[in-house]
Amino acid sequence: MTRTVLESASKTVIIGFDEPFCVIGERINPTGRKKLAAELEMGDFSTVEKDALEQVACGATVLDVNSGAVFTNKMAEDPRYADNNFVEPMLMPELITRIQALVDVPLCIDSSVPGALKAGLEACNGRPLLNSVTGEEERLELVLPLVKKYNVPVVAISNDDTGISEDPEVRFAVAKKIVERAADFGIPAHDIVVDPLVMPVGAMASAGQQVFALVRKLRDELGVNTTCGASNISFGLPNRHGINAAFLPMAIGAGMTSAIMNPVRAAEMEAIKAANFLMNHDPNGGEWIKFSRVIEAVHAGTSFPEAAAAAAAASGGRGGRRRARG
Amino acid sequence: MTRTVLESASKTVIIGFDEPFCVIGERINPTGRKKLAAELEMGDFSTVEKDALEQVACGATVLDVNSGAVFTNKMAEDPRYADNNFVEPMLMPELITRIQALVDVPLCIDSSVPGALKAGLEACNGRPLLNSVTGEEERLELVLPLVKKYNVPVVAISNDDTGISEDPEVRFAVAKKIVERAADFGIPAHDIVVDPLVMPVGAMASAGQQVFALVRKLRDELGVNTTCGASNISFGLPNRHGINAAFLPMAIGAGMTSAIMNPVRAAEMEAIKAANFLMNHDPNGGEWIKFSRVIEAVHAGTSFPEAAAAAAAASGGRGGRRRARG
Repeated sequence: MTRTVLESASKTVIIGFDEPFCVIGERINPTGRKKLAAELEMGDFSTVEKDALEQVACGATVLDVNSGAVFTNKMAEDPRYADNNFVEPMLMPELITRIQALVDVPLCIDSSVPGALKAGLEACNGRPLLNSVTGEEERLELVLPLVKKYNVPVVAISNDDTGISEDPEVRFAVAKKIVERAADFGIPAHDIVVDPLVMPVGAMASAGQQVFALVRKLRDELGVNTTCGASNISFGLPNRHGINAAFLPMAIGAGMTSAIMNPVRAAEMEAIKAANFLMNHDPNGGEWIKFSRVIEAVHAGTSFPEAAAAAAAASGGRGGRRRARG
Repeated sequence: MTRTVLESASKTVIIGFDEPFCVIGERINPTGRKKLAAELEMGDFSTVEKDALEQVACGATVLDVNSGAVFTNKMAEDPRYADNNFVEPMLMPELITRIQALVDVPLCIDSSVPGALKAGLEACNGRPLLNSVTGEEERLELVLPLVKKYNVPVVAISNDDTGISEDPEVRFAVAKKIVERAADFGIPAHDIVVDPLVMPVGAMASAGQQVFALVRKLRDELGVNTTCGASNISFGLPNRHGINAAFLPMAIGAGMTSAIMNPVRAAEMEAIKAANFLMNHDPNGGEWIKFSRVIEAVHAGTSFPEAAAAAAAASGGRGGRRRARG
């Protein structure tokens, strides 16, 4: 059985066919969050810290850390701050150090800048997930050596130099190429987590079925774990959480083993907890029963992060415990 | 592609691999509803009529009509009223006549009494679904001739004279036997809707996975449509609707094509509408967008049946229209 092992300073998380679905919290990401980018420029990490604690309390077992920012005020003085290649290799280790001081979960180091990936790998405890390599030749040659050198798993996104294909067979072929190229570097398939790319169902009617079929095929033929940006499926539609909350169980039923998503949403997390139970990945329904108390509190008017944090504290604060800073 | 055709006086509903999931409303059922049984004994059909209208407004496209009652007051005078075999053949046509006068959707005639099935078939307009035959020898010999004579489809429940097996392979074998026996009567596989039997996941940890695997196999190997009593999956658990709302999309993803269920629950119906969209059975998301307005009204405080009825009336009252009684 395929198992992708992630580690923080003291915790192990396994992404695998026989494991509960791995929720990778997506919120620590300044891309498209101008306010957060401005805070980071001023050295203010309070939102990052709040997002880290909240996501873990709500059920993320891995946190994605994306450093995608440029510093708009500083660039007036020094034009290098307008360049991701300059900003991100400084910012990524700072983010990682702050987050590791606060929560003890494996991280997912997320950047399009190879220098930021490398700086993140240097700063990170344990065994993080690297996010990402694609089928683009340049990316393969830059990222796979890092994956090998640091002995970490990597997210493989199934687009290549020709872009993102609408044909799922082409996306499968790209994933296969990445797995084969990784093997040339001595990287095993169980350290590749393929993102088959989720299209919005509002724009492409077959988007859901494509993903379900691709995930099954990636699992059966390549033996790899899978992930996705789950909320893409509902882009542009009304009542998006309703679509997401049906998509996730269907993807899990098809064999998807993780998602990069917002865990601070009760509807999606409820759907995942139920799907884990229905996949026989929640012995005696213990997790479901605990989560039901959170949902009860939410129905009674408590916010989901508050209800989830209270439940986590009551059960010993697993993962979300605030530790003394190093 | 397998298509099971159901008809009311003027409407056709198709259960099929390429169709939206067929929701068969389960509420018209005096079994375990003492108050309803007492009303029926007094000739009061107001709850039945309310249930018929509400279920259709909420999205049921077929209504199950179960006549499972005995008449506890009358039995003091006449002991025959303690016998389902006496009561149900009178009650079933009365129920059907009342419901048909009110809503124009195909019916599912549901009884363990062969005389009630026959009386229901005589009273019913269009092409109803017969519920049910099992793999028990006596049932096969009593029910299949009715299926043949009236040319209707039938629900086939996968238990036999040895009871309900916990082994899904045995349940598959029972389903196969029923399909083969039906063929001997000249009944085609597309008129058999197999219920693979859903166990409570709280009692049997593999219950979900069993159903998903069985549905796929029934579809691939026997080419039959499937149904189930969906809420069984969550029996005995807290926050049952959360389990049901994940189970239904997963079952639909595995190939389940209908369920006998309570449609007067927003969570489950939302999950089904989203799953239809994700299976590419909702062109341009038109149904999803309409349903999102209902969910919006529910979030704003309207009850689900009221919000659904208002939306149905606004779009021409399809199916739920109150017609002049005959």
